[in-house]
Amino acid sequence: MSEEITPTGKKIALDCMGGDLGPSEAIAGAALAIREGFIGPNDKLILVGHEDNLRQLAAEHRVLKSKRVEFKHAATVVNPDDAAMTVIKSKRDSSMLIALDMLKAGQADLVISTGNTKALVAAGTIKVRPMEGAERPALAAIMPRREGHFVMLDVGANPEAKPEHLVHNAVLGSIYAQSALGITNPRVGLLSVGTEEGKGGARINRTHTLLKAMGDKINYVGPVEGFDVFGDACDVVVTDGFTGNVILKTLEGLVYMVRDMVGKKVKSNPVYLAGGIAMFPLLRDLKGKLKPEKYGGAPLLGLSSLVMKAHGSSNRQSIASAIRLGLEAVGHDANRRMLVALAEANAVISSTPEEE
Amino acid sequence: MSEEITPTGKKIALDCMGGDLGPSEAIAGAALAIREGFIGPNDKLILVGHEDNLRQLAAEHRVLKSKRVEFKHAATVVNPDDAAMTVIKSKRDSSMLIALDMLKAGQADLVISTGNTKALVAAGTIKVRPMEGAERPALAAIMPRREGHFVMLDVGANPEAKPEHLVHNAVLGSIYAQSALGITNPRVGLLSVGTEEGKGGARINRTHTLLKAMGDKINYVGPVEGFDVFGDACDVVVTDGFTGNVILKTLEGLVYMVRDMVGKKVKSNPVYLAGGIAMFPLLRDLKGKLKPEKYGGAPLLGLSSLVMKAHGSSNRQSIASAIRLGLEAVGHDANRRMLVALAEANAVISSTPEEE
Repeated sequence: MSEEITPTGKKIALDCMGGDLGPSEAIAGAALAIREGFIGPNDKLILVGHEDNLRQLAAEHRVLKSKRVEFKHAATVVNPDDAAMTVIKSKRDSSMLIALDMLKAGQADLVISTGNTKALVAAGTIKVRPMEGAERPALAAIMPRREGHFVMLDVGANPEAKPEHLVHNAVLGSIYAQSALGITNPRVGLLSVGTEEGKGGARINRTHTLLKAMGDKINYVGPVEGFDVFGDACDVVVTDGFTGNVILKTLEGLVYMVRDMVGKKVKSNPVYLAGGIAMFPLLRDLKGKLKPEKYGGAPLLGLSSLVMKAHGSSNRQSIASAIRLGLEAVGHDANRRMLVALAEANAVISSTPEEE
Repeated sequence: MSEEITPTGKKIALDCMGGDLGPSEAIAGAALAIREGFIGPNDKLILVGHEDNLRQLAAEHRVLKSKRVEFKHAATVVNPDDAAMTVIKSKRDSSMLIALDMLKAGQADLVISTGNTKALVAAGTIKVRPMEGAERPALAAIMPRREGHFVMLDVGANPEAKPEHLVHNAVLGSIYAQSALGITNPRVGLLSVGTEEGKGGARINRTHTLLKAMGDKINYVGPVEGFDVFGDACDVVVTDGFTGNVILKTLEGLVYMVRDMVGKKVKSNPVYLAGGIAMFPLLRDLKGKLKPEKYGGAPLLGLSSLVMKAHGSSNRQSIASAIRLGLEAVGHDANRRMLVALAEANAVISSTPEEE
């Protein structure tokens, strides 16, 4: 942290270029975050992207004429379909990579980007070193359930998680659920294919043993099934980045399919049409509730600095909400508590013998 | 096959006891399957369960007074929450295990059960030997998409599938999609977390290499993401039994959540109520369409005889449809074609070197 601001202030680098709605929406989101008071008087918001363009867009928002707002130029943009490796190798001057470089250099405390998830996860993992005690970061999504929300992680950073990575996900997700959802003692469940011990294979069994061995260091409620996640079985669903990503994408695909089916059905029959018109606000609400990534942003937990992914289609409200969520995730003494929890987890991992 | 029936006839053992709606619904499903002509004149339907009970229920359906219908007594029942290992060890006299024993002994050509999935998968895998060339069976579900249906496998038999198992799933699922969905040259996709090569980890990469090496033996279209499965990317989605089971259960959980949310919303607001009443038939249709296991049954592919799981909540129509689907799955020369395809796949697997 630099000298100019008080120790409690945070510097947020906002990648303004990667979203589907373009930089004007990112700038509007930044203005909203200031107006809503998400960005405190000691915080700094650094708008990263094509500087001339951003300054022109910012001129429309009086609230952005503030000492709290800075600009950082980036000549290029990461496109939604750019391969992750291409971005890392040949888009060093993109707003995403420049924002990550600022994080790496300590010029920012957190990065928020609406850009290409795969590129952000890959570049974030390479550019920012893991938190002490962690090996691989996990992308943590906040998802809706019957009542309220839950945290699911990993939704796409580490597809081949080992038991120790899953245990790290459990402790990191537990602390994130406290800060982001305000749940005091989050119940942690391990996603599996059955709740009997011994189901799910060797990797899940070892993880289950380790999580049980954590004792009162974590509120572990045991294995949970896919069916349970939208119920009230737990507040943190732990899984590997392959399964979690597939679930997230499949749910998103299903929501789009339902929307299309409803649309078609409604048009096919006058009875449905009358009902459909009355139901539109409800269907829109449901669609919003069921689009998991819309809930603010998804942080990459387990890195020494915070990288947060916001949905590509984020509007100004979603961008402001991602800023708020990012500041909450780095607040509440979360970083120190994650370091302590990882050390405790690693002590349990190294002292718990592998079963036969 | 016994001498009394012609070589084209099949003997179906129907476990009548495990469904949520009880044996009366299973018996009604059996009667419907005969009335609908699903069971041919040379086929035999063996009703397995408490014989006195079943005979009494069958007396209500004139169509069941047929030489095509037989009874097989079983003293006990597998309960929905019985642990798989408990069933195998201590419920040998249950309708499920007796039906599987008939399959093992060649007294039946296929078993259909609405009972406890985990017990059926575990007991089926132990009782019935794998098809030559296969190692572990895969549970194949037919699921709805925007237009029509697709096959997803494995949805729960083999949680820790190796690349060779995934390749077996690909060829078995392809043949099943031909017989069950009537798709001539099904497009096969490998579920992954990105469509770039190299995403998804070593296991997915090796499977991708092997499937490409299959050449024109299979219509492999490459990796698909969760988002694509409800679109038109492919007809057969190949995955391991952990991921597939979690997807299936999560989707089911989501559908129930949506139903509850819609119900609550509709009651909360007179505008929604008016719309909701008009929309009820639509919502019921959607619920039916989105409950994946309702589409007939899910066969355990890769065993030397067919074991088919029908949904626990199956009504008579679903049970009749599972019987039809089971007969289709063992028809079309499917068994011989699966043996040929597995041999071809194994030749490719053993001749394709592991990459560095």
